[in-house]
Amino acid sequence: MNYPSRLVEEAVLEIAKLPGIGKKSALRLALHLLKSDLGVTHRLTDALLNLREKTTFCTICHNISDGDICQICGSFKRDDSILAIVQDTRDVLAIENTGQYTGKYHILGGIISPIQGIGPNDLNIESLVERVRNNPEIKEIILALSPTMEGDTTAFYISKKLSEYNLKVSTIARGIPIGGDLEYTDEITLGRSIVSRVNF
Amino acid sequence: MNYPSRLVEEAVLEIAKLPGIGKKSALRLALHLLKSDLGVTHRLTDALLNLREKTTFCTICHNISDGDICQICGSFKRDDSILAIVQDTRDVLAIENTGQYTGKYHILGGIISPIQGIGPNDLNIESLVERVRNNPEIKEIILALSPTMEGDTTAFYISKKLSEYNLKVSTIARGIPIGGDLEYTDEITLGRSIVSRVNF
Repeated sequence: MNYPSRLVEEAVLEIAKLPGIGKKSALRLALHLLKSDLGVTHRLTDALLNLREKTTFCTICHNISDGDICQICGSFKRDDSILAIVQDTRDVLAIENTGQYTGKYHILGGIISPIQGIGPNDLNIESLVERVRNNPEIKEIILALSPTMEGDTTAFYISKKLSEYNLKVSTIARGIPIGGDLEYTDEITLGRSIVSRVNF
Repeated sequence: MNYPSRLVEEAVLEIAKLPGIGKKSALRLALHLLKSDLGVTHRLTDALLNLREKTTFCTICHNISDGDICQICGSFKRDDSILAIVQDTRDVLAIENTGQYTGKYHILGGIISPIQGIGPNDLNIESLVERVRNNPEIKEIILALSPTMEGDTTAFYISKKLSEYNLKVSTIARGIPIGGDLEYTDEITLGRSIVSRVNF
């Protein structure tokens, strides 16, 4: 596409590098900023720079945090005996939104993915083992990872790593989502949900 | 949603102000920037600031331009006798991409929309009239506006404004899009396409 200006082209190329945004959407966003007040662009760029430069991570659970220790790790109301292992911050937010979990978290910062070149050493697994070793009050680990091949691999690796500690290791339930239609559920999910049926 | 950090929350709120981006997408983009190198964020914010602060507009057609006069207005290859009236830069890009138009443009910068409080004086209509008055080589005006109520209102207003000049005023053809399905075309489009049928 022939952009009318070099500056527009540069902005479009940079915006289109963000995940899920193509060049057409990027152009729409660029033209929106051009039409809006100067303050709109300034507030956006300031927020992005602050986010990237000033955000710190919790030294205990590796979640994004405003200080050294995040709100959840610092809270006395949370159950110290359960740890949910999640891929990233979005999963923490998703679980927190359910209101069903009162334990603490450990954020891996990704999952094992040989295709993307992510191995166990790129994740916060060593610090998890250390955390379990130093905190005997931890009794249960919930592997709250996505039910994909990468998620299962990561879960298996972690469960092996923690096998020497006397822990209950669980995983979030898999089956047909609530509101889902039996007819349109894929075979693997349906098959597994029959094999691992629960008492009514 | 309870964001883990004030900085994340601020970034999400600013990103979500962009058109077509909700809070979930904004969070995904914010976390992407957090994971990427510092340079990614810097290049993005620099491009956005440059775009907003340094972009200029063509003094003739009001299109976005790197200089006082845009590439199209400054080109000797373009037909001076035809002027396409469009809403904004995106429409120029769309028409240029067809490769079917060799005339010049006039960008209104919006369309008349009483609901959004946009009147004729907020648009580049006065400068269009002046341009037509001062350039007798202009013989035809193509009203290339969207076939919506606002677009039709704007087209009607402009055609009235230019009625005293000896101009051919045309509008882009309306009908069933190529590849479109007759059965699923809305009644108004189908009805109009029958009324304004053309010789085969």
